[in-house]
Amino acid sequence: MTATVFDLDDVIARIAAPDEQAQAAARQRQQRLTKPTGALGRLEALSVWASGVQGRCPPAAFARPRVLLVAADHGIAGAGVSAYPAEVTAQMLANFQAGGAAVNVLARAYGAQVRVVDVGVSTDLPGVDTRWKVCHGSGSIDTEDALDDAQLVAALTAGVALVDDEVDAGTDLIVPGDMGIGSTAACAAVVAALLGVPAEQVTGRGTGVDDDTWKRKVAAVDTAVRRLSGDRQPLHVLAAVGGADLAVMTAALIAAAARRTPVVLDGVVSCTAALVAARLAPTATPWWVAGHRSTEPAQQAALTAIGLEPLLDLGLRLGEGTGALLALPILHGAIATLAEMATFDEAGVSDRDG
Amino acid sequence: MTATVFDLDDVIARIAAPDEQAQAAARQRQQRLTKPTGALGRLEALSVWASGVQGRCPPAAFARPRVLLVAADHGIAGAGVSAYPAEVTAQMLANFQAGGAAVNVLARAYGAQVRVVDVGVSTDLPGVDTRWKVCHGSGSIDTEDALDDAQLVAALTAGVALVDDEVDAGTDLIVPGDMGIGSTAACAAVVAALLGVPAEQVTGRGTGVDDDTWKRKVAAVDTAVRRLSGDRQPLHVLAAVGGADLAVMTAALIAAAARRTPVVLDGVVSCTAALVAARLAPTATPWWVAGHRSTEPAQQAALTAIGLEPLLDLGLRLGEGTGALLALPILHGAIATLAEMATFDEAGVSDRDG
Repeated sequence: MTATVFDLDDVIARIAAPDEQAQAAARQRQQRLTKPTGALGRLEALSVWASGVQGRCPPAAFARPRVLLVAADHGIAGAGVSAYPAEVTAQMLANFQAGGAAVNVLARAYGAQVRVVDVGVSTDLPGVDTRWKVCHGSGSIDTEDALDDAQLVAALTAGVALVDDEVDAGTDLIVPGDMGIGSTAACAAVVAALLGVPAEQVTGRGTGVDDDTWKRKVAAVDTAVRRLSGDRQPLHVLAAVGGADLAVMTAALIAAAARRTPVVLDGVVSCTAALVAARLAPTATPWWVAGHRSTEPAQQAALTAIGLEPLLDLGLRLGEGTGALLALPILHGAIATLAEMATFDEAGVSDRDG
Repeated sequence: MTATVFDLDDVIARIAAPDEQAQAAARQRQQRLTKPTGALGRLEALSVWASGVQGRCPPAAFARPRVLLVAADHGIAGAGVSAYPAEVTAQMLANFQAGGAAVNVLARAYGAQVRVVDVGVSTDLPGVDTRWKVCHGSGSIDTEDALDDAQLVAALTAGVALVDDEVDAGTDLIVPGDMGIGSTAACAAVVAALLGVPAEQVTGRGTGVDDDTWKRKVAAVDTAVRRLSGDRQPLHVLAAVGGADLAVMTAALIAAAARRTPVVLDGVVSCTAALVAARLAPTATPWWVAGHRSTEPAQQAALTAIGLEPLLDLGLRLGEGTGALLALPILHGAIATLAEMATFDEAGVSDRDG
C-alpha cells in the first residue's frame, strides 16, 4: 500500500488554500451592500466562501454543478441490517439512468447534472459506467475487510481520476452522491473507528429499520470496529470497515481540493468520506460546505469533527446527493446577492453612520 | 370601526380549508415513490401542503410567485430605536425600484416578481404606487396610537384589495415583504400585547442596535404595550401599537386564504401580521408556511403561537421578503419530487416489503 499512500500524498501536496484576497474583497463588499451589516446571515459567509473557491469577487453562479454519484454494494447488507433487499442498489441504478430518482428530479430543478458511476455494485447493469469498478460488493465488515489492498488502491485511484475527468470537462462544483444498501452501517463503523466512539452512538436507522434490526446493526458495526483493534489510520479504517463508495469518495474529496473545485457535502456517506479525507488532508476542508443535516448520527458526528455546520436541516435521510442539491439554490442566492446588490453609494442610501 | 370588522368578517367567512382529497392523494403518492418512506423529510409534508393549496395531486411549480412588499414609516423610529435614520425607508424604496436590493436579487434568482406598495412612508416618491397609502408615517406608539380608526379601515381595505388584485392577475403564491425603519419595535409591541409577554422577551436588535439603543427600544415597546391596558383584541392592538404595514399585511394574509392563495411567511413583520391574522381568522393558517427563522425573538414567539416551524434557519434579519424567497426553491423541489419521481412499480424497484 506504500505506493498508493505516496500517490495520494502527491495529490494532497497540491492542495492550496482558497483565495484569501478574493475573500477579503468579498467581506469588504458585503459591508457596502444596501442592508444592515450581517443582515443576510449565513448567506454572507457563503458568498465569501464562493469568492475564495472561485478566486474572484464577486463570484459567479456555478455554471456546471455536477452530482458524482458512486454506487456500491456492501456485504454487511447480507447480515440483515437494512429495511431493503440488496438488489435495490442495482434497481436504483436503472432508476437513475431513467431519470426517475429524487436526485435526478432535484438536479433538473436546480440546474445540475448527474453522473452515475458503478464502483462496486454486485451485478453489472447495461449502460452503467463500470470502468471504475473495484469490486462486486465489498466484504461483510463484521467478519472480513471491506476492501483488500488492491481494491483500496483502485478505489482511491478512481476517485482522483473521476474528479480530474470532471474538472477537465468543466465541472466547477461537485456534489458527492451515493447509492448502496448497507452503506450507513459502513459509515457508522468508519466514524466510530476514527472518532473512538461507541457503535450505538453513531449507528442510525438508515432507510428506516425497526428496533430489532437497529440492534442487529449496532452489533454488526461494533464487531466490525473491534476488528481494527484501535487502529485509526484513515486508510486502514477505510479498507477494513468502509467500502468502495467511501474510498472513491474520500479520494474524490481530496482531489477536488487539489483541483480548486468546491464541494457541497450531502448526507452520511459523503460526510463520512469527508471525515476520512479531512484526517488524511486537513487542508482540503476549506473547499467544502455542508449542504444539510441528515437524520443519521454518524453524519452529525463527522461534521462536528470536521467543524462544518450544515446549511439546511430538513430531516432528509435519502443520500444520492439530494440534501446537497437542496442547498445549491441557497448558494446561488448568496452569490447573487454579493454580485448584484447595489452598494450604499450606488443607491444613495444612508449607511448607519451616514 | 364596526363596519370594518364586519367587512373583514365577510372575508374571513369565505375562507375554506385546503383540499383534503388532494392532500390524501399526495400522502399516498409519497408512499409509492422510489425512496424509503419518509426519506425526503420535510419535503414530503411540504409537497402535501402544496397539493392541498393547489387542490391537485401532483401539484405544479408555482407559475407566478409574487413578493407583495409594503413599505411604511413608524413614528417610533423618532424615539431613537433604530441603527438607521428614518429616511432610509424612502431611500430603499428607490433601491427597490432600481432593482438593487436583496429582495430584487433573490426574486430574480428564484423566478419571482416584486410589487412595491407605499402604504405609509413619510415622503412620497415618484414612480412608487401610493394608491393604497393610509398615512405619512404612523403615530409614535410610545405616546399615541399608530393608526386612527379611519387609517386602520383604509389599511385593512388595502390589504384585501391588493390580494384581490394580485390573484385576479394570476398570482398563485404570495410572499409578504416589508420595509420600514422602526418596524421591529412595532412588531415587538404587537406580539407582547397579543401574547401577554414582557417587552424585553420579544424585543430584538432589529437592524443591529447596540445595548443602549436596545434598552431604549425595550422601554419604548413596554410603554406602548401599557397604553393598551391589557386589551388583546387584535384590531385594537394593530391600531394602537402596530402600523400601516402590519395592518395591510394582516388583511392581506386573511384575504390570501379567502382566495385560496398560499403564502410563504418571511421575517418578524410578516409573522407578526400572521399572528394578528391568526387571532382574527384561525382558519387562514393552513394556507401559510413559514419560510425561515429570523433572529428577531418576536418572530419566533409569533411562529410558536401560530404553530409553524420555519423551513430555513440561516440567521437572516433583513425582511423585504428575502428569507421567504430563499425557501421558494425548497418548495419547488418538494413539488418536483412528488410530481416527477418514479414510483416503485414504474421503476421496477423492490419496496421494503417486496
